[in-house]
Amino acid sequence: MHWPYKDLLDVDVLSVEDAQRIFETADSFMEVNTRSVKKVPTLKGKSVVLFFAEASTRTKTSFDMAAKRLSADSFSLAKSSSSLTKGESLKDTGLTLQAMNPDAIVIRDSRSGAARFLAERLDCAVVNAGDGWHAHPTQALLDAYTLRKVWDGRFEGRTLLILGDITHSRVARSNVHLLTKLGVRVRLCGPRTLLPPRLDTWPVEVFHDLDEAVRGVDAVMCLRLQLERQQDGLLPDLREYSRTFGLGRRHLELMNPGARIMHPGPVNRGMEVSSELADMPESLILDQVTSGVAVRMAVLFLLITRKDQGGERVQS
Amino acid sequence: MHWPYKDLLDVDVLSVEDAQRIFETADSFMEVNTRSVKKVPTLKGKSVVLFFAEASTRTKTSFDMAAKRLSADSFSLAKSSSSLTKGESLKDTGLTLQAMNPDAIVIRDSRSGAARFLAERLDCAVVNAGDGWHAHPTQALLDAYTLRKVWDGRFEGRTLLILGDITHSRVARSNVHLLTKLGVRVRLCGPRTLLPPRLDTWPVEVFHDLDEAVRGVDAVMCLRLQLERQQDGLLPDLREYSRTFGLGRRHLELMNPGARIMHPGPVNRGMEVSSELADMPESLILDQVTSGVAVRMAVLFLLITRKDQGGERVQS
Amino acid sequence: MHWPYKDLLDVDVLSVEDAQRIFETADSFMEVNTRSVKKVPTLKGKSVVLFFAEASTRTKTSFDMAAKRLSADSFSLAKSSSSLTKGESLKDTGLTLQAMNPDAIVIRDSRSGAARFLAERLDCAVVNAGDGWHAHPTQALLDAYTLRKVWDGRFEGRTLLILGDITHSRVARSNVHLLTKLGVRVRLCGPRTLLPPRLDTWPVEVFHDLDEAVRGVDAVMCLRLQLERQQDGLLPDLREYSRTFGLGRRHLELMNPGARIMHPGPVNRGMEVSSELADMPESLILDQVTSGVAVRMAVLFLLITRKDQGGERVQS
Repeated sequence: MHWPYKDLLDVDVLSVEDAQRIFETADSFMEVNTRSVKKVPTLKGKSVVLFFAEASTRTKTSFDMAAKRLSADSFSLAKSSSSLTKGESLKDTGLTLQAMNPDAIVIRDSRSGAARFLAERLDCAVVNAGDGWHAHPTQALLDAYTLRKVWDGRFEGRTLLILGDITHSRVARSNVHLLTKLGVRVRLCGPRTLLPPRLDTWPVEVFHDLDEAVRGVDAVMCLRLQLERQQDGLLPDLREYSRTFGLGRRHLELMNPGARIMHPGPVNRGMEVSSELADMPESLILDQVTSGVAVRMAVLFLLITRKDQGGERVQS
Repeated sequence: MHWPYKDLLDVDVLSVEDAQRIFETADSFMEVNTRSVKKVPTLKGKSVVLFFAEASTRTKTSFDMAAKRLSADSFSLAKSSSSLTKGESLKDTGLTLQAMNPDAIVIRDSRSGAARFLAERLDCAVVNAGDGWHAHPTQALLDAYTLRKVWDGRFEGRTLLILGDITHSRVARSNVHLLTKLGVRVRLCGPRTLLPPRLDTWPVEVFHDLDEAVRGVDAVMCLRLQLERQQDGLLPDLREYSRTFGLGRRHLELMNPGARIMHPGPVNRGMEVSSELADMPESLILDQVTSGVAVRMAVLFLLITRKDQGGERVQS
Repeated sequence: MHWPYKDLLDVDVLSVEDAQRIFETADSFMEVNTRSVKKVPTLKGKSVVLFFAEASTRTKTSFDMAAKRLSADSFSLAKSSSSLTKGESLKDTGLTLQAMNPDAIVIRDSRSGAARFLAERLDCAVVNAGDGWHAHPTQALLDAYTLRKVWDGRFEGRTLLILGDITHSRVARSNVHLLTKLGVRVRLCGPRTLLPPRLDTWPVEVFHDLDEAVRGVDAVMCLRLQLERQQDGLLPDLREYSRTFGLGRRHLELMNPGARIMHPGPVNRGMEVSSELADMPESLILDQVTSGVAVRMAVLFLLITRKDQGGERVQS
């Protein structure tokens, strides 16, 4: 069956079946990732442009590894070295890149909607690798993929808490969308100043007390506090924050047995989560990173080969 | 027949036959670029160093794509991350790179003559990807290649106008050389402050009035106004400039039927050319970008394999 | 026989047999480097992360070439574009990178001990590409490898002078370790302010007069004077330095016949060594660069394939 979408901009268009298809495709690539020969020729000769306008270790390298393990060529364009610094518009940069016939453009941009803007103007596949506070679909997919593995594929009846700075988090937005669709009950908790307005329209339960929020959950996803934004006055007092909303060992006892700790990284240890918790076997933080490569391989594969697909599975 | 040159520094040494050979080689690679399998093993194992000392989206990525679609490995060296910041001379950096046995070094440098300086000191192929105001041979080749396609291979009897900041434009210099040699009548037009001295020695007609200049031309090549240089006092008043020398819809009627619009990019929309014109079917701006990859594949192929060549054509 | 070490952090753990094995492996790759087909599929599908936190032309490009000529994929992470700028610790960056399943991480960091710190926490191979003033093992290996070739494999009975800023040189430290172990008599010479304390515990002879120091040596290794550190007050008067400790033609007559000149680069011509000497046939400066790619191919090969090795040699 053809993959129905040209782009991956947000998780909201994905059905449960779409998500499951991405997970199963990623499964086939997880095997590749751990084999002694780590590469498949699936996307040989295909070109993936990595257009990242913000600093990022993990997401850019993760896409780069995903592309190369499928034998695609990748092309890195940093904002500082691109013609954007010469005043070229995002549209013109996009059209220029497309004229070189890439098969996909992966874009991270601080402006919400940047990926959609490009996708509407380009014929090639566009993958949103994070646009401002808006969306980060591959992060939500890799988070769900990570939970699927530890939960043996069953999301129904599970409860997950997303903890921290909800307002400025594209990770939170994308995860609420995807996980609730998959059947997870999602809770949010954070200081009132970091919760967005009109949360009553979201399919979530909202808590302001962490002890209450963690009671009976199967996983807690801590969000990164973007300390570099403190000068903008967007953050609360950090000492106060870590005391009230930092996840520590004592919260573990209130959660369900076998509950897991997640964080999209990079972690501010002792701030969003204690260093002890981050390193415990309950922590999925590094599993999330490993899942990320497999999920991004799946996304690149499905988008780039969608015209060639006739229902057959990837041969790994 | 062996390709006769070790380097590509400027278009002035190229005969019409040389240019035609590059175009025909590029033709064979254009086919590759649009095939479902986009890669040929022609330069497998060859190493191409991309040594770019200025910000550049399109040229660097274009060379990178050209190298990888021929299965060469490419190595990016940015000025800021190179030993040049430790005070190493261009000569020593070049010798050091050569000692690693690359097959070609592609260099962009703000100093006129930088590429020739390297080429004279190195045994490996050197490609000038733009040196200051001096030359940009692959740009001229891709421009001619783009026109060749829309003009069905015939340059004789055609008239092209190069419009704008001629003085600071390596694109203009290289295009005048190549296009006049191919048989195109070339006109120049721009404000007196942006026309170089001693234009009477150039094989061109000079205009100071845009309406007169565009009358009867088959193509207009707008040059980029380098707005970042305005603080140097090198630019005229921009409002005045766009009113007097900006290309707009009304000029289209003065040109020959089927006349084309070109620009090396990045375009300052509304400045050198109106946004409407840049997006019309008459515009070749994105075709130039597509041609760029094919022409650069041809150049890398001819330079790198010239010792192996015995008259046979590339098998694409 | 299995290669016994997971990492290459310093030369001090290497036995003479280990070093010889690296040299012989490099020999097999030197052949590859000069063949018309320059690539071997040995590490196809393997991932090498280049994590360089300082500017470097030669070392980073050298590792990049080494990886790609073995058909490995390489992933560049610059400090400025990594999450380290978001405050992530070296440990967490390392664990994150490892979670993406690379086969080796090559790290350059200004902090002494950074490579060892990572190596102790990661399961994958870690290669120290220079950590502060501490160690630079592949430089020492490529220097020894270069001398081995001109000395026909025999180090015993040879005398080498290391000249210049010993205190701030990881190159000096690593070379003294390795070369003395191989049987070379090592001399040090430099101004007292640039000699480290307690040199009496090093297996070297110390000189303060250059004429005396060069008498009867078979090679002089000039060290780079890090001019960018002059504002820290760490450097002597430069005019005085070059007059007293700069190597010139007249020193050549005092050395043994056939004596060689080395420098890790980038050279400050006229400072550590005269331009004339640097360019003479006696100079090994560019041979060192060429050796560097081969030695790094050997190191990456031995570390990455050590679990697969059953005594067989690399098929080049």
